[in-house]
Amino acid sequence: MYLCNTKNPLDCIMNYSFSVRMNGVPKSFIREILKVASDPSFISFAGGLPNKDLFPVEGLRKATEKVFKTDGKNILQYSTTEGYKPLREFIANRYKTHKGIEVNPDNILITTGSQQGLDLLGKIFINEGDNVLIEEPAYLGAIQALSVYKPVFTAIPLNHEGMDVQILKKALFSSRFKLFYAVPNFQNPSGITYTSENRKEVAGLIEKAGIVMVEDDPYGELRFLGEQEASFKTLIPDNVMMLGSFSKIVAPSFRLGWVVAPDEVYEKLVVAKQATDLHTSYIAQRIVYQFLIDDDLDKHIQNIRDAYGKQREAMVDAIKKLMPKEVKFTLPEGGMFLWLTLPNHLSSMTLFNKCIERKVAFVPGNPFYVNKNDVSTMRLNFSCSNADEIYEGIGRMAEALKEMM
Amino acid sequence: MYLCNTKNPLDCIMNYSFSVRMNGVPKSFIREILKVASDPSFISFAGGLPNKDLFPVEGLRKATEKVFKTDGKNILQYSTTEGYKPLREFIANRYKTHKGIEVNPDNILITTGSQQGLDLLGKIFINEGDNVLIEEPAYLGAIQALSVYKPVFTAIPLNHEGMDVQILKKALFSSRFKLFYAVPNFQNPSGITYTSENRKEVAGLIEKAGIVMVEDDPYGELRFLGEQEASFKTLIPDNVMMLGSFSKIVAPSFRLGWVVAPDEVYEKLVVAKQATDLHTSYIAQRIVYQFLIDDDLDKHIQNIRDAYGKQREAMVDAIKKLMPKEVKFTLPEGGMFLWLTLPNHLSSMTLFNKCIERKVAFVPGNPFYVNKNDVSTMRLNFSCSNADEIYEGIGRMAEALKEMM
Repeated sequence: MYLCNTKNPLDCIMNYSFSVRMNGVPKSFIREILKVASDPSFISFAGGLPNKDLFPVEGLRKATEKVFKTDGKNILQYSTTEGYKPLREFIANRYKTHKGIEVNPDNILITTGSQQGLDLLGKIFINEGDNVLIEEPAYLGAIQALSVYKPVFTAIPLNHEGMDVQILKKALFSSRFKLFYAVPNFQNPSGITYTSENRKEVAGLIEKAGIVMVEDDPYGELRFLGEQEASFKTLIPDNVMMLGSFSKIVAPSFRLGWVVAPDEVYEKLVVAKQATDLHTSYIAQRIVYQFLIDDDLDKHIQNIRDAYGKQREAMVDAIKKLMPKEVKFTLPEGGMFLWLTLPNHLSSMTLFNKCIERKVAFVPGNPFYVNKNDVSTMRLNFSCSNADEIYEGIGRMAEALKEMM
Repeated sequence: MYLCNTKNPLDCIMNYSFSVRMNGVPKSFIREILKVASDPSFISFAGGLPNKDLFPVEGLRKATEKVFKTDGKNILQYSTTEGYKPLREFIANRYKTHKGIEVNPDNILITTGSQQGLDLLGKIFINEGDNVLIEEPAYLGAIQALSVYKPVFTAIPLNHEGMDVQILKKALFSSRFKLFYAVPNFQNPSGITYTSENRKEVAGLIEKAGIVMVEDDPYGELRFLGEQEASFKTLIPDNVMMLGSFSKIVAPSFRLGWVVAPDEVYEKLVVAKQATDLHTSYIAQRIVYQFLIDDDLDKHIQNIRDAYGKQREAMVDAIKKLMPKEVKFTLPEGGMFLWLTLPNHLSSMTLFNKCIERKVAFVPGNPFYVNKNDVSTMRLNFSCSNADEIYEGIGRMAEALKEMM
């Protein structure tokens, strides 16, 4: 790749020769859509953002004021790679009280968003060519983060129970896998939650196959219907690395997430984290910790659940009333997304283009698959639109769809 | 590496099998030293921290108050991977006014500290086995960040002029190199600054060899003696990626740095950044930007320069007065570090152990070399000790050294 005179190493022309690892990393198609949909006359179900009207602005403002007043110099200094200990203790305690999971704070690593948790786990576990199990459809950010380390993905379809156990079993018999990545609660993009029975079956297989499981749970606290299911961590503790995030329950702009990992893995993660960005913003950790101990987080989360629950109801109702009966869709019990499947293998990209003309946006399913191009599925976000917008937007989509059918 | 029954893939024992890439990444020896030296009766020249007494606490507090008041919701939301545009414009403008370098804000990527810039550049450029040129001694964080991508390092010794051009030339004739990493101003760990003549010679060679140069400049604004030298960016613009940081001129806890890269490289960096942590803390960017436009940054930096200049003077004076004449040391014109070489190949690790007994700490040179174990060199940090502590600490070191000689 060097444009050089082979006889004289000091006779070359500058030419950027990139690493092979970046070749297969997909760009975010969603970002491109968001640019189109940023026109305020658009109704957008394309985003993946929490609703900013629910951010605890005043609580965070007060927390910030307090940390500046009480510890001004120290909150501005470098800090430890592992993260602020009291914040890790808070997280450990919440696992115990809210999910019945015993976690030692020394097994919690604070990360720059849970996206960084994915990068670090990819870094420490994946060699080029390693087999990795993901869901189909899968969280795009995980595909991106792990792709950098050049695994071979096998995607296991989701159904209304969770993961398709028969297909998973078949895959486990065909290859050895290094890692299994899943979002068992209100999955992004599908909104699907694994049932209790499905969790047990999947966990049993993963345990028997000796595979590291990454259990990503950014939306777990945002349940507005039904009962909480057991974390995979309680079923197969040695296999599971848990990822968590404050982005959906406090605010995303701090970039605060965490990984829970057994000692042996934790040590590797700390070395990788140090090489990657030394540590996560310490002032961000201090502000959010102050907010968590001074405010009523449970009450705040209940507000989010109430709001998202109503928005989800509006979207389900609008789809039932306005869309052709042949359209299938998931019924999420929490989170921010709903997954819609068109009849007769109609193309969601074609629908997307027709919808853009009508100033309504969503994310066609394509980027959530590792090896499918034209699909009939799409992701709809309901957390950032009010009921009127939802009825209007679904109405416009329905019109466009009827034209196609 | 899988502990499995080879006949039955569902009969395995859980066993963490890590990626090969993490094997060669050094742990930070400095972190271990810092643990020892955190005893308050210790005098420590081991750290690498800016002096927290100089942090602009009040200015940052006011800036924070203002962004919460004027844009409360938005400062808490997700943001763009590239970074806050007005902050990138501020950085571009400062390059122009303070260094005479024309930079387009669209070529500036905000990173989670400049450490992340190193990780991203390693990610997009380095394939396993690629040859990478570094300085000897080299910044430990760069060795760590780049090691993850498994390059073969060639270390070119520094001297009082900058880089040893003869050895560099010899290296360039012996192998093809992908990347050259350097800290030309007040280098960490040596405190050395490349002279004008040395820069031209090194730049000429790097240009002719068609190598990507990473010019890291975290301390460049902290010059307390002499005149600013031209950036490599002005000498060989197509080759150079610049790394910058707010950690030493504002505060480290925000984890705000940046990379300046040509379009083609920038695009790759954005994809890599998105996969790594989506974007850098947006609230951190907004607070620091507000501080930068509301406060007098130049005056603030002048305060830091004055303070560090006096601390450096005290350290140089103490070494001259108290240390054996055979000891050699650098005379930094800026930054936070000074590099000391013991006579007769005495071991700095032996001195370190004797000094720990006397409750004074420094960093032995070892971790700053990629292929040397017992060296006579050491790094002394002067930014966090006052003159009394400096004289006392150097005095204790001198006693210990005299015992060895």
